[in-house]
Amino acid sequence: MKVSNYLDTKPIQILAGVVKREVITADDGAPHFCMRVFEVEPGSSVPLHSHPWEHEILVLSGQGAVLSGQEETQIAKDSVIFIAPNERHGFANNSHQPLRFICVIPVGT
Amino acid sequence: MKVSNYLDTKPIQILAGVVKREVITADDGAPHFCMRVFEVEPGSSVPLHSHPWEHEILVLSGQGAVLSGQEETQIAKDSVIFIAPNERHGFANNSHQPLRFICVIPVGT
Repeated sequence: MKVSNYLDTKPIQILAGVVKREVITADDGAPHFCMRVFEVEPGSSVPLHSHPWEHEILVLSGQGAVLSGQEETQIAKDSVIFIAPNERHGFANNSHQPLRFICVIPVGT
Repeated sequence: MKVSNYLDTKPIQILAGVVKREVITADDGAPHFCMRVFEVEPGSSVPLHSHPWEHEILVLSGQGAVLSGQEETQIAKDSVIFIAPNERHGFANNSHQPLRFICVIPVGT
């Protein structure tokens, strides 16, 4: 059993204003899936993209939008988002607070 | 893409004072893992048990303890817990607020 605080995991800046923390990974012994926590600063975004693996997301705090290329859906604390494999998606923080969310992906992606 | 509020998922009472919401499941098309949100009322607990699948957990709010049978580790908002397959574990809410956490498991367990 590993118990930690997610903030103790080193933040990795992946885009301007977007930070990722890999809080549970294969290095911890996770056999099937990894948990990450993202923080998107106000005015920042993750551009539309797609990949062969799914995302399972829960918003921890803040507000923003999830993008599909066709529509923009508002999300906020307690929103749950399932993005299927190969589905286009992006995120935008159009609020004045950081947008924080958990995003789980399969191991080995 | 499915976007919802986790509170819109029907709560299932699994033990006295313990409620589970299955917020992303195979029925949504999730191919590998499922996301659930648990709420443990003050004074309630999930007894020690084990099973062949892992848990990946993040505490959303409240305080409590994760139990291993040998030790009791305090957890609170932002705690991350990895429980390996077949590892004994339980949870107790020894605080005065509900303890809420995400728990991800493989599909088909």
